[in-house]
Amino acid sequence: GSGSDQASDGASVPKKVMVIGGDGYCGWATSLHLSNKNYEVAIVDNLVRRLFDHQLGLDSLTPISSIHNRIRRWKSLTGKDIQLYVGDICDFEFLSEAFKSFEPDAIVHFGEQRSAPYSMIDRSRAVYTQHNNVIGTLNVLFAIKEFGEDCHLVKLGTMGEYGTPNIDIEEGYITITHNGRTDTLPYPKQASSFYHLSKVHDSHNIAFTCKAWGIRATDLNQGVVYGVRTDETAMHEELYNRFDYDGVFGTALNRFCVQAAVGHPLTVYGKGGQTRGYLDIRDTVQCVELAIANPAQRGEFRVFNQFTEQFSVNELAALVTKAGEKLGLEVQTISVPNPRVEAEEHYYNAKHTKLVELGLKPHLLSDSLLDSLLNFTIQYKDRVDSKQIMPSVSWRKIGAKPKTVAA
Amino acid sequence: GSGSDQASDGASVPKKVMVIGGDGYCGWATSLHLSNKNYEVAIVDNLVRRLFDHQLGLDSLTPISSIHNRIRRWKSLTGKDIQLYVGDICDFEFLSEAFKSFEPDAIVHFGEQRSAPYSMIDRSRAVYTQHNNVIGTLNVLFAIKEFGEDCHLVKLGTMGEYGTPNIDIEEGYITITHNGRTDTLPYPKQASSFYHLSKVHDSHNIAFTCKAWGIRATDLNQGVVYGVRTDETAMHEELYNRFDYDGVFGTALNRFCVQAAVGHPLTVYGKGGQTRGYLDIRDTVQCVELAIANPAQRGEFRVFNQFTEQFSVNELAALVTKAGEKLGLEVQTISVPNPRVEAEEHYYNAKHTKLVELGLKPHLLSDSLLDSLLNFTIQYKDRVDSKQIMPSVSWRKIGAKPKTVAA
Ligand SMILES: NC(=O)c1ccc[n+]([C@@H]2O[C@H](COP(=O)([O-])OP(=O)(O)OC[C@H]3O[C@@H](n4cnc5c(N)ncnc54)[C@H](O)[C@@H]3O)[C@@H](O)[C@H]2O)c1
Ligand SMILES: NC(=O)c1ccc[n+]([C@@H]2O[C@H](COP(=O)([O-])OP(=O)(O)OC[C@H]3O[C@@H](n4cnc5c(N)ncnc54)[C@H](O)[C@@H]3O)[C@@H](O)[C@H]2O)c1
Repeated sequence: GSGSDQASDGASVPKKVMVIGGDGYCGWATSLHLSNKNYEVAIVDNLVRRLFDHQLGLDSLTPISSIHNRIRRWKSLTGKDIQLYVGDICDFEFLSEAFKSFEPDAIVHFGEQRSAPYSMIDRSRAVYTQHNNVIGTLNVLFAIKEFGEDCHLVKLGTMGEYGTPNIDIEEGYITITHNGRTDTLPYPKQASSFYHLSKVHDSHNIAFTCKAWGIRATDLNQGVVYGVRTDETAMHEELYNRFDYDGVFGTALNRFCVQAAVGHPLTVYGKGGQTRGYLDIRDTVQCVELAIANPAQRGEFRVFNQFTEQFSVNELAALVTKAGEKLGLEVQTISVPNPRVEAEEHYYNAKHTKLVELGLKPHLLSDSLLDSLLNFTIQYKDRVDSKQIMPSVSWRKIGAKPKTVAA
Repeated sequence: GSGSDQASDGASVPKKVMVIGGDGYCGWATSLHLSNKNYEVAIVDNLVRRLFDHQLGLDSLTPISSIHNRIRRWKSLTGKDIQLYVGDICDFEFLSEAFKSFEPDAIVHFGEQRSAPYSMIDRSRAVYTQHNNVIGTLNVLFAIKEFGEDCHLVKLGTMGEYGTPNIDIEEGYITITHNGRTDTLPYPKQASSFYHLSKVHDSHNIAFTCKAWGIRATDLNQGVVYGVRTDETAMHEELYNRFDYDGVFGTALNRFCVQAAVGHPLTVYGKGGQTRGYLDIRDTVQCVELAIANPAQRGEFRVFNQFTEQFSVNELAALVTKAGEKLGLEVQTISVPNPRVEAEEHYYNAKHTKLVELGLKPHLLSDSLLDSLLNFTIQYKDRVDSKQIMPSVSWRKIGAKPKTVAA
């Protein structure tokens, strides 16, 4: 794949992609991948995620460089430029200037507060999450309408929008026959945190603007991402990606690998039957590129379920235990009281064929990936702060009062 | 009905109802109705709706008194007290103090920006609408969780959340059989303005808190309200309710009556086949009382479709034309280009049995009601500003830039 169109004079014009949230876990890997594929990339980020880490006393397992150093190193290694706009997309004046100066053909929007536990810490974080995500996305939609109607919005949603219905999960829409009549309607949503709800709100807002304004949009309902290395981030230490293992920002499989590396029992919430879709971060970058290379039509609101395999938490724990033992680690598992409100045993069968039809070649979770991920976490295990491993946020105990104590 | 519980000593303790948005069209009529029925009522309102009217150069057809005079007049006529808390529910400190001082058994939440055209004027009004409505409702949920978990939330939603699907509309939930499995899921939502979308977001947020925190809530998906007089507001001129006829806040049937009264042709948008549920404001107050008197269970998220009859815009125009002719008015109809993006011919069949099962006795739209409504509008026709009659807001032309010119 290569990020260029044929211009009328035969010269190739690189497609311009604005990556909002390009300093984050998915966004950084995607920015480098697209730059490597000859897209012209601009990162938009207010770096607020780095602030959250400071405020909560958290840190990435991997040491990560500043965004300025990251971009400088990428330029010195590859000769490729990545433009940087530092600011908040909730500030429409900032976003307008960035949009008008870069003139993107596509926007990949990763730039949201993306942790369910963070959104459940206290009232002010719940409100922040919904405001930041919903208003940020509204601003992106208005910027496209005002300054570049043809720009394709590739928006990161989450599989968590669907919840765990007792019927198969389709990709965005479901055909319902009811009292003898039939219609294809948005798939019903049952999100279970203020974060997941913010994504549901975004989806409804985007769908409306596709219909009313002719916006072209792809909603990527992403599963849980695991892994850390992509071809580009592996090129140099200063390009390394963040790797969250704590109870607030860490996600299931990544957390288990760090727990295994430091000899902490794997923390299964409740019964461990919670089943979700998962994917390798190398597939995140591939999926986003496929969405950009095959844009939605004007007025189309397209939804792809972006994951490659389903696992229950217990299955993941068993896989990490086996892989750990091969490396001589003694891996134990404990059940901890579930801090969330969610079904711990349920039916789960979610479709995910649309990205495969566009050409996705999945990196399935194999022994060798788990081996290398575990080795990677072992390499950095001295950086682990064990106090951050257990879950600290309760869905039921969230209060209206600001939580002021860090640990 | 009467708003009191039996206390252990046999004395009757009035139920306390906080009416958020109690200075508005539905809220004022409801506050007086509940007060009359011996509920203890507190109005919470930041009066922002009166500010919108000033800013846009609009005015109610009926002259309305200040909220302070309204409450004084009610007290002098009936001896009954209504408490008043003036402030913004997006300000959690204000809301907390009001909640702790009044200790409501139920909250009726009307306090939102409720005009679809207002939300489509410009970017800043779109953002204001979603912020005001979503964050205000989140604050109400947190106040209940923190200060009075048993308080019943009666939240005003809208039938517009459902859009116009090609299958029957159920009350909040639909049972779907898909690939051989069955589940009852939230009815899919297809809202078509930033205002209607804000209600969809509220519904999802409330449903989550019922499940996660055990909140008890009733979502009243209300149809379009018509009429102006209720038993209580008719008691004195200083108690009169607002009556909006302009293109921003006026709703279909009320607008047609004013148009007929001043000899303006009835403004049908596009083909006029748009069909919606309607109800008399005397039924709004009855429905809210029924919901309060029969509260949802702890943890229950109950949805009622609150309307009594369906009409297409063309049917309403025909009814007003007939009623006008009986009064000697010459009523014409014109089709104006539809400022909205919506289907103008569609299937529509929405269930509305749950409130009837609780005891609702509907006031159906009859000749006599239309007669008195028309006579009422004729009485005030000198107050009509004809410039405000035509629609001024376009769903497609909304811009990112602030709209600074009033007329
Ligand atoms: N990581 C996962 O497993 C996963 C799974 C499903 C979906 N997603 C979605 O993918 C996206 C990226 O996730 P991630 O794991 O890379 O998160 P992340 O926290 O690592 O990155 C998000 C980035 O967005 C930036 N940001 C947040 N609000 C902003 C604003 N208002 N203006 C400008 N920048 C802002 C942050 O500073 C951060 O750099 C999110 O939308 C997330 O919901 C992630
Ligand atoms: N009028 C209708 O036909 C209709 C139809 C369906 C649903 N509804 C719903 O019923 C409710 C009431 O509608 P209405 O026609 O009476 O509207 P209205 O504009 O007359 O009244 C709304 C009131 O809420 C107040 N308010 C708004 N934001 C507030 C905030 N942040 N803090 C405190 N007060 C605030 C306003 O000042 C106003 O007095 C709304 O939620 C609306 O969406 C109305």
